[in-house]
Amino acid sequence: MVDVGDKSITRRTARAEVRVRMASATAEALRAATLPKGDALVTAQLAGIMAAKQTANLIPLAHPLPLSSVEVTFGWEEEAVLRIESRAITDGKTGVEMEALVAASVAALTIYDMSKALEKGIEITELRLIEKTGGKSGDWRRPA
Amino acid sequence: MVDVGDKSITRRTARAEVRVRMASATAEALRAATLPKGDALVTAQLAGIMAAKQTANLIPLAHPLPLSSVEVTFGWEEEAVLRIESRAITDGKTGVEMEALVAASVAALTIYDMSKALEKGIEITELRLIEKTGGKSGDWRRPA
Amino acid sequence: MVDVGDKSITRRTARAEVRVRMASATAEALRAATLPKGDALVTAQLAGIMAAKQTANLIPLAHPLPLSSVEVTFGWEEEAVLRIESRAITDGKTGVEMEALVAASVAALTIYDMSKALEKGIEITELRLIEKTGGKSGDWRRPA
Amino acid sequence: MVDVGDKSITRRTARAEVRVRMASATAEALRAATLPKGDALVTAQLAGIMAAKQTANLIPLAHPLPLSSVEVTFGWEEEAVLRIESRAITDGKTGVEMEALVAASVAALTIYDMSKALEKGIEITELRLIEKTGGKSGDWRRPA
Amino acid sequence: MVDVGDKSITRRTARAEVRVRMASATAEALRAATLPKGDALVTAQLAGIMAAKQTANLIPLAHPLPLSSVEVTFGWEEEAVLRIESRAITDGKTGVEMEALVAASVAALTIYDMSKALEKGIEITELRLIEKTGGKSGDWRRPA
Amino acid sequence: MVDVGDKSITRRTARAEVRVRMASATAEALRAATLPKGDALVTAQLAGIMAAKQTANLIPLAHPLPLSSVEVTFGWEEEAVLRIESRAITDGKTGVEMEALVAASVAALTIYDMSKALEKGIEITELRLIEKTGGKSGDWRRPA
Repeated sequence: MVDVGDKSITRRTARAEVRVRMASATAEALRAATLPKGDALVTAQLAGIMAAKQTANLIPLAHPLPLSSVEVTFGWEEEAVLRIESRAITDGKTGVEMEALVAASVAALTIYDMSKALEKGIEITELRLIEKTGGKSGDWRRPA
Repeated sequence: MVDVGDKSITRRTARAEVRVRMASATAEALRAATLPKGDALVTAQLAGIMAAKQTANLIPLAHPLPLSSVEVTFGWEEEAVLRIESRAITDGKTGVEMEALVAASVAALTIYDMSKALEKGIEITELRLIEKTGGKSGDWRRPA
Repeated sequence: MVDVGDKSITRRTARAEVRVRMASATAEALRAATLPKGDALVTAQLAGIMAAKQTANLIPLAHPLPLSSVEVTFGWEEEAVLRIESRAITDGKTGVEMEALVAASVAALTIYDMSKALEKGIEITELRLIEKTGGKSGDWRRPA
Repeated sequence: MVDVGDKSITRRTARAEVRVRMASATAEALRAATLPKGDALVTAQLAGIMAAKQTANLIPLAHPLPLSSVEVTFGWEEEAVLRIESRAITDGKTGVEMEALVAASVAALTIYDMSKALEKGIEITELRLIEKTGGKSGDWRRPA
Repeated sequence: MVDVGDKSITRRTARAEVRVRMASATAEALRAATLPKGDALVTAQLAGIMAAKQTANLIPLAHPLPLSSVEVTFGWEEEAVLRIESRAITDGKTGVEMEALVAASVAALTIYDMSKALEKGIEITELRLIEKTGGKSGDWRRPA
Repeated sequence: MVDVGDKSITRRTARAEVRVRMASATAEALRAATLPKGDALVTAQLAGIMAAKQTANLIPLAHPLPLSSVEVTFGWEEEAVLRIESRAITDGKTGVEMEALVAASVAALTIYDMSKALEKGIEITELRLIEKTGGKSGDWRRPA
């Protein structure tokens, strides 16, 4: 774990996204919140937020971070493609890219878990950083 | 968390895969193990295995499982596309799909973490179950 | 941690309850799901279930248990008294009283957390075991 | 998890209390430290302190906090009513109400676990915040 | 994590020991339980037991195990040499050597933590397995 | 957990060491990385780093710390004595002695786990603090 002691404490944000591709019937069930295990979107949102707080325990060389905020939101892009977006903020010494990616990732995995009785072929895809701000390396935005 | 008490203890396996798409220079650095943070593949392998053991803490309604085995392996599919495959085995009452998916997912996230000083645009994609065996619902294989 | 090796693996259940006493305005906000932090009841339900899986890490001498099921449900007893009931099931060697009590307890604490911007005086009270079944010591029911 | 980045780092304290109501024989055994599992009060004290450090992992939307201090103390209020008081201190951006409540709560649950071979009907009751200081919302004291 | 699915469920035990060498004044303070942080031996005992339950999260390739029992005991060997012995039991598919070693190790580290205000030079030494029983590889005892 | 609120945030470092004594054949296998479980040194290094981040969860009265850096390195002292050195850095309010000791300790335990199929008699010995810097109590170095 590289030394970040000399870095300054500044506001750093990161946004990530991921897509969950499923069959139409699964998407219907998700939207109607009629899955056997309950409301998948609310569950996935909380799972993503809680997982972000575990980032330093999951990613071996990640630094523990004082998270100021984590958000996970959902939107249907196509009839059966759920887009998950996460945003993490810290006022700390290292970036929060990993926290945002972990939140999006575990939210998507939870959607899979809640839906797998209906469909095992669900695909989690295009997990990527959208944007980061703050820190010495400066801001970064995914090219369009 | 639905009751699995009536399910029988049988051998259950699951295999999952995921792809990490990156720039050529990042792939070169990964293969040469010259990344600033050390050998990313070994680190990602251990991170995936350890995360599989945390599945019930990450996925809200997942049952705790006595894992008999977890494996994470790597292969270069194209010059700059790393394919990660995971396999989880239990002798328990519920399937290990989530354990395999979590292992693949956290292994991929660790590759991202180890490489992000070089490239922020890395994409983690096509995370999916390949196969599951055992249990009352029987075997399942992803259609070709 | 006393030796439970000689105990037999049988189905064991436990039910616990707890009450959360609050001001009328807080109860209104909870029912309308208009609290600033979101839907408190769904969040509390998931928090209780996830905490039950952490019982052996929270209670020093508790044995790790293969939980078969955890449920957390809510009901308004009076206009401003929320009753939380939890039920835990294992097919294991020790009872699940602690798992049920932890689930009810953390669900109630989460209600507090979600409501504390409105009211700091909320009281969590009458946390108790209602019933246990299974195991050598036999069934137990709280006297009326 | 709401953004606390703009909040200032100040000293914040919180005190909570809870009561454990039991049969006279259980109270006797607790005072004499003759319970089969060992000295329940020392165990409960450590369990409460360690649980306070897990608050952000137990309460879904709680922020991780740099705890400066946690204390758990005991006193017999009546012959068979044990009162547990906890105090948490942080020099951080959010209050420590939840840390104090979690400490008191898990200390009480541990008393239950240590005593349950003697008595299953023990009741954990009147868990509440007594006082908080620091932060923008100012000090608060439970009305007498 | 190698596959243990074919192994049979049998009773397996392991005992480990470790020594903590300190200055006479530190040993005095430990025996008198007058250390600033409280009774170090009770704290170390609980820390060792709780750490044993975390073995699979600490040791990357260790299998999760259903622990039936963990014990940690203390004895003064010389005037300023504390000997800690741990015993772990499982009815499972893999040995509990690591659980016993982790318990002894974390108990010793806790002694260090409780005493370090008095003496930084304390040495933790001769951590070793004493005995294991059960499993296909049979019993093993440390040669005298 | 004693109150550290009045302490100032300064750079604090700690270095610890431990020795793993084994049979020649085990040492050979470790050096050749031909152990059945894989490359033990890399695994032990990561295990030590990850365990350092868990220090406050393992050691009951340890304060949670924002770790700036953790390092674990290896060297063969004699033909069959592996020396592990760890270094931890924080920019915080309390020392990182425990983090360094935990890192060294868990790295050594992981070496044991990776080698135990070959040799059960491996001894982990002479775990001690080498040096600490920073903080009000000033610097400390182990006398030669």
